[in-house]
Amino acid sequence: MTHSVLLKNVRPMAGPATDVLIVDGKFAAAGQSPVEGIEIIDGENAILIPGLIEAHTHLDKSLLGLPWYRNEVGPLLVDKITNERESKIPLGMDPQVQSERQAIVSMAKGSTHIRSHVDVDTVHGLKGIEGVMATRDKMRGWIDIELVAFPQSGMMTRPGTVELMDEAMKLGCEVVGGLDPCAIDRDPKGHLDTLFSLAERYGKPIDIHLHERGEMGCFSMEMIIERTQALGMQNQVVVSHAFCLGQPDRKYVAQLTEQLAKSGIRIMTTGPAAVTAPAIQELRDAGVVVCSGSDGIRDTWGPFGNACMLDRAMFLAQRNNFRRDDEVEIALDVCTYGGAISMDIDNYGIAPGCDADCVLVDGESLTDMIVSSPARKRVLKAGKTIAENGECLLLAR
Amino acid sequence: MTHSVLLKNVRPMAGPATDVLIVDGKFAAAGQSPVEGIEIIDGENAILIPGLIEAHTHLDKSLLGLPWYRNEVGPLLVDKITNERESKIPLGMDPQVQSERQAIVSMAKGSTHIRSHVDVDTVHGLKGIEGVMATRDKMRGWIDIELVAFPQSGMMTRPGTVELMDEAMKLGCEVVGGLDPCAIDRDPKGHLDTLFSLAERYGKPIDIHLHERGEMGCFSMEMIIERTQALGMQNQVVVSHAFCLGQPDRKYVAQLTEQLAKSGIRIMTTGPAAVTAPAIQELRDAGVVVCSGSDGIRDTWGPFGNACMLDRAMFLAQRNNFRRDDEVEIALDVCTYGGAISMDIDNYGIAPGCDADCVLVDGESLTDMIVSSPARKRVLKAGKTIAENGECLLLAR
Ligand SMILES: [Zn+2]
Ligand SMILES: [Zn+2]
Repeated sequence: MTHSVLLKNVRPMAGPATDVLIVDGKFAAAGQSPVEGIEIIDGENAILIPGLIEAHTHLDKSLLGLPWYRNEVGPLLVDKITNERESKIPLGMDPQVQSERQAIVSMAKGSTHIRSHVDVDTVHGLKGIEGVMATRDKMRGWIDIELVAFPQSGMMTRPGTVELMDEAMKLGCEVVGGLDPCAIDRDPKGHLDTLFSLAERYGKPIDIHLHERGEMGCFSMEMIIERTQALGMQNQVVVSHAFCLGQPDRKYVAQLTEQLAKSGIRIMTTGPAAVTAPAIQELRDAGVVVCSGSDGIRDTWGPFGNACMLDRAMFLAQRNNFRRDDEVEIALDVCTYGGAISMDIDNYGIAPGCDADCVLVDGESLTDMIVSSPARKRVLKAGKTIAENGECLLLAR
Repeated sequence: MTHSVLLKNVRPMAGPATDVLIVDGKFAAAGQSPVEGIEIIDGENAILIPGLIEAHTHLDKSLLGLPWYRNEVGPLLVDKITNERESKIPLGMDPQVQSERQAIVSMAKGSTHIRSHVDVDTVHGLKGIEGVMATRDKMRGWIDIELVAFPQSGMMTRPGTVELMDEAMKLGCEVVGGLDPCAIDRDPKGHLDTLFSLAERYGKPIDIHLHERGEMGCFSMEMIIERTQALGMQNQVVVSHAFCLGQPDRKYVAQLTEQLAKSGIRIMTTGPAAVTAPAIQELRDAGVVVCSGSDGIRDTWGPFGNACMLDRAMFLAQRNNFRRDDEVEIALDVCTYGGAISMDIDNYGIAPGCDADCVLVDGESLTDMIVSSPARKRVLKAGKTIAENGECLLLAR
């Protein structure tokens, strides 16, 4: 059955107002005719942008919908990891319920695709994976969710984790995850060889959390580049955070950036205010694709985050001192096309033939839309309205 | 005529729910009786906090209410200063109208006091000062506005500016402003001696923009400290931005911090993501009062800012890597009590006897309130409701 939607009076990328036709879930080609039974939507002069891409979050970790969690956690990364692993059961966190809650907020905010890292560890086993997979299946047709099997508590240091990672990939995770080969896992060679061999075995891409700063982070980055090139995994590796690329030695970073571009390694940055961070403009100028995400949203790590990728574009802009409109628009590109390339999403965009995943938002200009971040007027997934006036049509429980 | 207000079912600082009585514009003492004709307000279990303090903004510069300004300005500080000075007339910026628009947004967001730097230069003379003073007078009883005479374009480098600064103080500016004695004004001794002598002549405090980084900024800071101590101006000087206090040499910064504490010099920080910034916790631990502000809101410098001091508390928290609730609450303290001390506001707070300047906001906890930043339920100035459900009762034109 063919379904047509006519978006009347919308401004693609804040350009001139026009009507946009969607046929069978895709943006129609010029001259293509609507079929009968067309749904007509008054865009009221809203800006039309492609669906926002949440390229890095943790659907299993959010505390959304639970009573306020008073955070009294220690300052180290390992304090946060340990506290979280030990808090999940006492706090009554059900990965299916929590992931559904966050996915619903994401849809309300205009995201049409999510890459979620999901914890795999010897305490909780594959409960997180199973819960988020249940949400992924339940939300099919509403929002695309892909899972990264993520050894948050370490892999080489915690016997039994590699086997669980293997099990997670067998269950159908779309991406192999890793983290801090030196600082957390204390065995960079072992950690990375394991990740890349899992990726090879299952024919899946890789997404590694790299919080390591300065020289240590750059060393890990080099080892990731070496393996990406040796195994022909160009365009299949994302390094998330990559704080080390913000280190002061810019000449060294420039060399590393050249290697990242050559290897098609993508960089995910949240635009963190308190640490060194990758310079988005420099990376893009060198040909490196940059994507972004909310990371943890109201979890035991911290209270921040609202799943809004327009707010995220603002954080990216502020972190990178983007003030001119053309600069702020780069931040939006990171949260849309950058995410789509990094997650290898087919038929993305608002050109004819693309999947009709899109958002209508009020604003005078793209930058106005980002800094004002009004409630999304409408969010469509393959031409179907999934959120209206800031509310997802699937209700959170 | 005495007027009483009873705020029923509110939670002071997110504590237990209670009723709070306001008599004649002040929070009543325990046991004090309401007078007749009492106005009863149902707080619906909202959090009660004191009025938010916007301790640093530029009311004359905002483009609020004007058509979208596409920013294509160059990267240097001086590019932004020149562009702004030359854009005011072509853009049709009327300082009275623009300051009123921003003040109304501020009230809607829960601010009850504003310190506004206002440009004084040889092109526009005292037009900015006169415009913002007109707004200050018009808004009396709604929001307290104080003016800092601010030589944005430089003072020593632009003959005639010192005379205009003197004129501005005569007109009734509450604070003497300055900026970047080295980087912009090219004459640190001349600049600072002039500021301190204006302050002495008019018996007014000082608030200096100091964007200078690293060693240069610390040098200017030392010169500010020397004059503050020599002239007995302890507790009467604010240094705004003070990016230099974020420089890597922490031992030197610690020494400087000790001198700041001894001089009662206050530090204003916006929590900037893209530059080095003062470490709030370190300053407070050493006894330095820290306040905050929105700085420019949607002006020719950049599109950011929404006049919301709860969002500002979130930016401060993120910039300072505050994640624990007790840490995030420090950021709120900066945006309330820190501002009140820095601006020397009498009778500030929610204790009995204090002026009933306060805000009702929904939230489970103070941190929840900050990160959720819902529309302010109600804002009161001396017991009078000035905003309700996110709307100021004075309408913007
Ligand atoms: Zn993450
Ligand atoms: Zn300023």
